[in-house]
Amino acid sequence: VSENLYAVVMAGGAGTRFWPLSRRTNPKQLQPLVGDLPLIAATVERLGQLVPPEKVLIITGADQAEATAKVLPQLPNENIIGEPEGRDTAAAIALAASILLKRDPEAIMAVMPADHVISPAEVFRKTLATAAKVAAKTDCLLLFGIKPSFAHTGLGYIHFGEDLPGSSGAPVRRVVNFTEKPDTDTAEKFIKSGEYYWNSGIFVWQAARIIREIEQHLPKHGKSFKRIAAAIGGAEQESTIAREYPKLEKISIDYAILEKAEDVAVLEANYQWDDVGSWLALERHCPQDAHGNVADGDILMLDTHGCILRGSGRRLIATVGIKDLLVIETDDAIMVCPKNRDQDVKKLVDELKKRERLELL
Amino acid sequence: VSENLYAVVMAGGAGTRFWPLSRRTNPKQLQPLVGDLPLIAATVERLGQLVPPEKVLIITGADQAEATAKVLPQLPNENIIGEPEGRDTAAAIALAASILLKRDPEAIMAVMPADHVISPAEVFRKTLATAAKVAAKTDCLLLFGIKPSFAHTGLGYIHFGEDLPGSSGAPVRRVVNFTEKPDTDTAEKFIKSGEYYWNSGIFVWQAARIIREIEQHLPKHGKSFKRIAAAIGGAEQESTIAREYPKLEKISIDYAILEKAEDVAVLEANYQWDDVGSWLALERHCPQDAHGNVADGDILMLDTHGCILRGSGRRLIATVGIKDLLVIETDDAIMVCPKNRDQDVKKLVDELKKRERLELL
Repeated sequence: VSENLYAVVMAGGAGTRFWPLSRRTNPKQLQPLVGDLPLIAATVERLGQLVPPEKVLIITGADQAEATAKVLPQLPNENIIGEPEGRDTAAAIALAASILLKRDPEAIMAVMPADHVISPAEVFRKTLATAAKVAAKTDCLLLFGIKPSFAHTGLGYIHFGEDLPGSSGAPVRRVVNFTEKPDTDTAEKFIKSGEYYWNSGIFVWQAARIIREIEQHLPKHGKSFKRIAAAIGGAEQESTIAREYPKLEKISIDYAILEKAEDVAVLEANYQWDDVGSWLALERHCPQDAHGNVADGDILMLDTHGCILRGSGRRLIATVGIKDLLVIETDDAIMVCPKNRDQDVKKLVDELKKRERLELL
Repeated sequence: VSENLYAVVMAGGAGTRFWPLSRRTNPKQLQPLVGDLPLIAATVERLGQLVPPEKVLIITGADQAEATAKVLPQLPNENIIGEPEGRDTAAAIALAASILLKRDPEAIMAVMPADHVISPAEVFRKTLATAAKVAAKTDCLLLFGIKPSFAHTGLGYIHFGEDLPGSSGAPVRRVVNFTEKPDTDTAEKFIKSGEYYWNSGIFVWQAARIIREIEQHLPKHGKSFKRIAAAIGGAEQESTIAREYPKLEKISIDYAILEKAEDVAVLEANYQWDDVGSWLALERHCPQDAHGNVADGDILMLDTHGCILRGSGRRLIATVGIKDLLVIETDDAIMVCPKNRDQDVKKLVDELKKRERLELL
């Protein structure tokens, strides 16, 4: 156990691919999409005693902070930080690093998404403990790499090189470069080469190091960032964040820092990992019936095959003769779409925004 | 206008193919499935002054009588007859004929389903007036035949023969025989021959004649039928019907009488006719958008083609990438099924019965 290890859980996503269940004020990470716990609660629980609740920060939308606190009663209220608006991961990480540095100048921070499914938790914690040690010793920027199992075109790929000196047997390698969402041919080449990992969006580094990188590579953060950092822990923290945070540059940590910095390394993660990216995730994590259906709610199926049906339980969903469809029901909406159009659920949300159907977002 | 002409509207059906909208106590004929009026109200309105409301009898389930009266405020209450239980058309017609005979010994009755779409109403009324005249003059049992437009395998076919003597130019022909729901090959042969009509379930005859036929061909109706006939119009009418009606033989008028009686004739109907047999009827009667969708309710469609979507309007139905599907939403149920499985909607209702989900029936 590292005394200086903290976790920063990134919970800014809207989860529009899980509409109509996922909403602005009740996004997918707050819901038990898979298993009994809300995804974010499972993420905190997974840390166990390696990073106990009082050392876990949540960065989320200000309008989601209250609901987030409700599903994480074990967390001190001040550990749930509401962003006045989403400014992408570089800003969120800058804010979190400033807060942690104030608490602990030696802070090592593990940054992770709120909504991924990882198991077994013990392997995850072991990987995290190793990463914390490496970060403390080498001051590297560390990423967790997942061995790719197929030519996924929706993820980022990490090209890795030589072993990090002094990584003492743990598979820690220097990062050569990054490729975001390659086409199928490229992804297949990557997999064949054996020199690539999926980027799972989990990072481990010293808070002081990432602050230095931000100051160097994000000069546009400039005065706003300095004012926020200075206000942390004081009476003006909240008002300063409210005023200055929206002025931070909106850019991902990957583009802003990781693609440019020296000493970026990747640690091979040997746990099962799923980014729960769309409704199809339910097939990977929920039991299927003899006809390949995943059904949850008050459901009546006749001659129905390969479908994902999810209802509120307050209304019957009845199907006959359908195949490979998503049917999702909530109190105010029903969504029907073929499974292979799972990415287009987002388009429905975009269209609802256009039509100003705010009550459905 | 025939002074002795009465209409008997048969409204005993459950409309299970229109589940989840059609329910035991609110069946399809009471709903504005097509157009602005409930189907049964359109049926009564179609009769116009040829058969004014006070001369229209409705035969319906006792548990539907109250709701039926609500959508037909123009009808005297005593014209809505509730069957204690469904005993098929021979029993319903026997009851109606007994009631009409008591009112008018010369009564001519036009029997018609509550839920068919017919237009133009004027052509229908003209056909009906002709039929009433022919029935008065010849004492025939008259059916309305529809010229078949394709090899429908779900309807009854009437094989017609020579012109009825004295039918004075109106195309009234003797019936040779009936074929119920032929297979496709047979239906195609029927259509090629030019000697067949669809049986549209509309009959015109003298009440006295059908009573004689019932007494002859349905001896099993026996004492129960005589007791009902005797009680009509008296203080004991309701209690006698409640006690004796369930004892009547459960058989259709077609099997019980029409296939056996002499002097059965068919009149060619030249109006547009649709039996509104399943959700597909909406495509024939409701406007379609540029992608062949029929949509009613609060609906958001992206890349959606050839679908029939009907919602309560109280919740959004959102679809993306679907084709040729039925999606029907009510306050307590959602039904999804391919259009070409429209007949299987009934199977869902059967299954709900089996599972004793009475609240959904």
